[in-house]
Amino acid sequence: MPSSETLAALRAFVDERDWDQFHSPENLAKSISIEAGELLECFQWSPGFDQEQVEAELADVVTYCIHLANKIGADLDEIVMKKLESTKAKYPVELAKGRMTKYTQLGDSPE
Amino acid sequence: MPSSETLAALRAFVDERDWDQFHSPENLAKSISIEAGELLECFQWSPGFDQEQVEAELADVVTYCIHLANKIGADLDEIVMKKLESTKAKYPVELAKGRMTKYTQLGDSPE
Amino acid sequence: MPSSETLAALRAFVDERDWDQFHSPENLAKSISIEAGELLECFQWSPGFDQEQVEAELADVVTYCIHLANKIGADLDEIVMKKLESTKAKYPVELAKGRMTKYTQLGDSPE
Amino acid sequence: MPSSETLAALRAFVDERDWDQFHSPENLAKSISIEAGELLECFQWSPGFDQEQVEAELADVVTYCIHLANKIGADLDEIVMKKLESTKAKYPVELAKGRMTKYTQLGDSPE
Repeated sequence: MPSSETLAALRAFVDERDWDQFHSPENLAKSISIEAGELLECFQWSPGFDQEQVEAELADVVTYCIHLANKIGADLDEIVMKKLESTKAKYPVELAKGRMTKYTQLGDSPE
Repeated sequence: MPSSETLAALRAFVDERDWDQFHSPENLAKSISIEAGELLECFQWSPGFDQEQVEAELADVVTYCIHLANKIGADLDEIVMKKLESTKAKYPVELAKGRMTKYTQLGDSPE
Repeated sequence: MPSSETLAALRAFVDERDWDQFHSPENLAKSISIEAGELLECFQWSPGFDQEQVEAELADVVTYCIHLANKIGADLDEIVMKKLESTKAKYPVELAKGRMTKYTQLGDSPE
Repeated sequence: MPSSETLAALRAFVDERDWDQFHSPENLAKSISIEAGELLECFQWSPGFDQEQVEAELADVVTYCIHLANKIGADLDEIVMKKLESTKAKYPVELAKGRMTKYTQLGDSPE
């Protein structure tokens, strides 16, 4: 993740513009937050949304995530799977089923 | 993007916990912003960072991006490539090379 | 805004810890985003909320806003009032009443 | 905080447009995150910034903070001061002086 074509296209885009100098991990992390805000703006006043607009803003968030992963030498599939393992441990099915309770409070069952 | 294994694992995680009911596009967009903030926290006071911590927080952002893409029926590779085409048009190499100037001001050349 | 007591207390807090060196405008802007994410977390999965938790997170956002205003020499009441004037002009009562339409599309009336 | 004039002006702005219906605490929390992202955008690629632009974006964040405080019946000075007391306890001067270490790790002194 992403496909090797997408990855190559993003790298070429940055190289052609000589933008790698701006792509510090810190600047990319800021960029992810900024774009996440623009994505959220699609839902600012209601849960309803415009498909095309959400796709475009989600694409921006993911683009910067790919740039950041490249920059720090991380593989997105790998880190997502690794994190999933730890999340599974924090939210065992029998405690978390049908409830969105923070894992630190999962023990406090309502019975 | 992501790999079919990652995608299947994330879907199983949600299904087993019966969490699809919470995964409205709006809630997922909020979640992306929240996790983007946690990623940014790795760089709050300095550009230096802890690799493992950044990978874990980046994984959270990307995980919710995958959930949102699934939810609205979007393919991440496809929307990233589509957005890249429009970004290329906004930032032509000859104007944007080595400069991080917003595209709306790219015409205002310094000469 | 804020009261002179609050302002003095916040300044003393920073001075005693010798933290002014970390309070660059950029770091404070990051901090505002990070804390805004924590505030949003109070509403991640539902519109319902815990009053005390929201107050504590809102306080963090506002605290960093006050630090940033101090740092760049801005008066919060003044900039809020100035911005209100320009927002009023963008959203005239007769067009904006009861509608949350972005000002750029306000002319496109539904009739 | 804010001054009674600013508060009255913001309330009148909302009332005249009949926008209170959109100002749920959840929507205001989203708005604060969105505007925090726009403020951060002023620092996206460098620590340098444009004073006027930062003031305008900071004003937007603070405006929504004031709306949220009104909505949930919180006094900004009061919650900021209350939070400051708990932050002081987490970051005692003798441990935190000149260091930006998260309070959970403050005990791990380098000596």
